[in-house]
Amino acid sequence: MSNSNSEVGLSAKQKAHKAKMQKHKKKVDAHIAAAQKERGLALLLTGNGKGKTSSAFGMVIRALGYQQKVGIVQFIKGIQECGEANFIQKHCPTVDLYQMGTGFTWNTQDMEADCLAAEKTWVHAERLLSDEQYDLVVLDELTYMLGYKYLDKDKVITAIENRPVEQSVVVTGRGGGSKLRSIMDTISDVKDVRHAYRDGYKARKGIDY
Amino acid sequence: MSNSNSEVGLSAKQKAHKAKMQKHKKKVDAHIAAAQKERGLALLLTGNGKGKTSSAFGMVIRALGYQQKVGIVQFIKGIQECGEANFIQKHCPTVDLYQMGTGFTWNTQDMEADCLAAEKTWVHAERLLSDEQYDLVVLDELTYMLGYKYLDKDKVITAIENRPVEQSVVVTGRGGGSKLRSIMDTISDVKDVRHAYRDGYKARKGIDY
Repeated sequence: MSNSNSEVGLSAKQKAHKAKMQKHKKKVDAHIAAAQKERGLALLLTGNGKGKTSSAFGMVIRALGYQQKVGIVQFIKGIQECGEANFIQKHCPTVDLYQMGTGFTWNTQDMEADCLAAEKTWVHAERLLSDEQYDLVVLDELTYMLGYKYLDKDKVITAIENRPVEQSVVVTGRGGGSKLRSIMDTISDVKDVRHAYRDGYKARKGIDY
Repeated sequence: MSNSNSEVGLSAKQKAHKAKMQKHKKKVDAHIAAAQKERGLALLLTGNGKGKTSSAFGMVIRALGYQQKVGIVQFIKGIQECGEANFIQKHCPTVDLYQMGTGFTWNTQDMEADCLAAEKTWVHAERLLSDEQYDLVVLDELTYMLGYKYLDKDKVITAIENRPVEQSVVVTGRGGGSKLRSIMDTISDVKDVRHAYRDGYKARKGIDY
């Protein structure tokens, strides 16, 4: 019989596993001990792969699981139905969700209208980023607004940097630029190793939108 | 004034933007036209970066936004409180959530008990993977069970491959192995470009757990 407090009765394989795990635990514990600062974090979820917006929304429900206050601004989105917005609008009345509602730039093909819509949407983002009631602010697809120069990069970066100290912010979208990256605490680059659509599969309800 | 149907009154810059977007739209439309197959998809969210589990839970609420039926099995997890499980347990009564509840292998340090817990947990995963009522099945942290050989790889892969044709499955965790990767429709490798904990920041409630 195994006993987690001793090695009595363990096979050689089990002993080796235990020794390896003890060693690993030391390493993990040292990392945890070294990380003692705490404040709101700025995260960038970027790259070409699938999972950036869904990860941001996973953090939304993670925060809601602790009764935190969440605000979401979705740039571009709001024309095509999407499951996460459906869910938030129906089941999460405490969440402040604003959608730009223009659709993709290659569909609008109208720089002037897109710029105006981006500025109008940014007003909501700025409001959230200056309100310490919000524990988590999601700025979904914001990077495209910077890439297309629909929003002034410095204005955006200043607002993110000057947000309340306990507030976390999650920015999603491909690219983002080196200046935005420089102010982020955590950056995940989601690499597109394989994507079903390249094998001819349609975007799927509940998975892709 | 701009007019999306003509170029009357557009500046040179606006015309150039419109032309670029029209060209891009052609490309996007061709991709969409080429992707006409549809069935449940198998996704792997892997890599060392932050955002794999949260992305899976984002897809959970995306699916719930269309009243789809969702089942979640969390390997390892269930000892430390986590916001996404709090939320699902409290607000999503239709979701079937099962947690292995052992914690990390380097904390248990007990191969035999971990193997038994993994097998017991796998029973729930197999049940979901053979029930066509479920539109989406999440197998969170499953890859570690394969990496540590707590579960038989072939058994796991067979169950994923033989699931109902309209059911999607999302597997998360580092690694996973080439055989698991070979049966996946979409693979995102979340690269850890930067992580706040390396700068001394504690794991944060509502963001990291």
